[in-house]
Amino acid sequence: MTESPGVVDLLGVLAYAELSAFLRLAEDAAHLAPTLTDRAVLGELAVAEYAHFELLRDRLLSLGADPDKAMSPFVEALDEWHLKTTPGDWLEALVKAYVGTGIALDFYREAARRLDPAIADLVDEVLMDEGRSAFAVERVRAAVEADPTLTGRLALWARRLVGEALSQGQRVAAVRPELAQLLVEAVHDDQAEISRLFARLTEEHGKRMAALGI
Amino acid sequence: MTESPGVVDLLGVLAYAELSAFLRLAEDAAHLAPTLTDRAVLGELAVAEYAHFELLRDRLLSLGADPDKAMSPFVEALDEWHLKTTPGDWLEALVKAYVGTGIALDFYREAARRLDPAIADLVDEVLMDEGRSAFAVERVRAAVEADPTLTGRLALWARRLVGEALSQGQRVAAVRPELAQLLVEAVHDDQAEISRLFARLTEEHGKRMAALGI
Repeated sequence: MTESPGVVDLLGVLAYAELSAFLRLAEDAAHLAPTLTDRAVLGELAVAEYAHFELLRDRLLSLGADPDKAMSPFVEALDEWHLKTTPGDWLEALVKAYVGTGIALDFYREAARRLDPAIADLVDEVLMDEGRSAFAVERVRAAVEADPTLTGRLALWARRLVGEALSQGQRVAAVRPELAQLLVEAVHDDQAEISRLFARLTEEHGKRMAALGI
Repeated sequence: MTESPGVVDLLGVLAYAELSAFLRLAEDAAHLAPTLTDRAVLGELAVAEYAHFELLRDRLLSLGADPDKAMSPFVEALDEWHLKTTPGDWLEALVKAYVGTGIALDFYREAARRLDPAIADLVDEVLMDEGRSAFAVERVRAAVEADPTLTGRLALWARRLVGEALSQGQRVAAVRPELAQLLVEAVHDDQAEISRLFARLTEEHGKRMAALGI
């Protein structure tokens, strides 16, 4: 069902999510990384996001869509999310790279389930974790173990990331009903399926928090 | 002559120059690009700089050098250069990507001439232009043609980029005499060769200014 009215929206929001993640990770690497090695590793994650952006842009072009037009409805919400979740220090940047991005990606993955398998595969490919976890988890765990008083602040920060994501997500859903429809299409008559969807999202988020030790 | 005392310094300064160019270009793309296409194109140039950083880091490792240690003497001067030449708008960002980086690269290229050919080839590879020119030149020329009053401001900006580069270059030369030595090694007894070196640098800078139409 590549003709689904939500598919260009989904690829568009995902393309801009990757482009803006690339730019913000680079910015956090420049300003917050405590060592040159950390700066280079976060830079490498940023570059991986750019490669994803290119895949999505090329797919939009091959569908005959204009990538700029496909991305533009989502620029404001995503820029706003980044603005409201600008990390104050290196640990917040790592938690954002892992938890904040993780929950957004879970949503995209759920939406992609309803699509043409070729599109769903592309979405899966660009959503692959690629070492983001290992890098962030290892460093945050070590910091929290060394100073357990960090736990409260970082847990609060993670909740804020999720809260702001939900708030921007609602905003997007309001202006792009086709996209929201993708997420609930298969489930809107099935209360149990909706519960399972939220259970999956909550479970994945819980796993990430546990992995970080916060 | 890979054993030249300046070679690790040259690869180190170049590695940090590429890493910081990557991060600053991404930042300019995020904050100053007027369209999503411009943002993506400047992002692509940033990603190319990261690939160069990786080549240089790998070469440092293969020489038995610690990349962090090799880069660290140059972090302050390069960060300071970027801080003092933070572009105020998109055109300034393009002029910086082309003129500012260009003159720095000319210096690195001159230094690399005195080295082992394998190292000189690597330096040439990472200094390749890769479309930076075409992209910046095309957009700046179009802007200046549309509004000739921009010429004065952008020409002044270009002079400032060069002035700040020379000032940071002197600072680096003072603390890393081995690196400065590379540049003047073959020429220090030959006044005519020094004149030719400066003539080459000035000529290249002049060509870039003419290409931009400023």
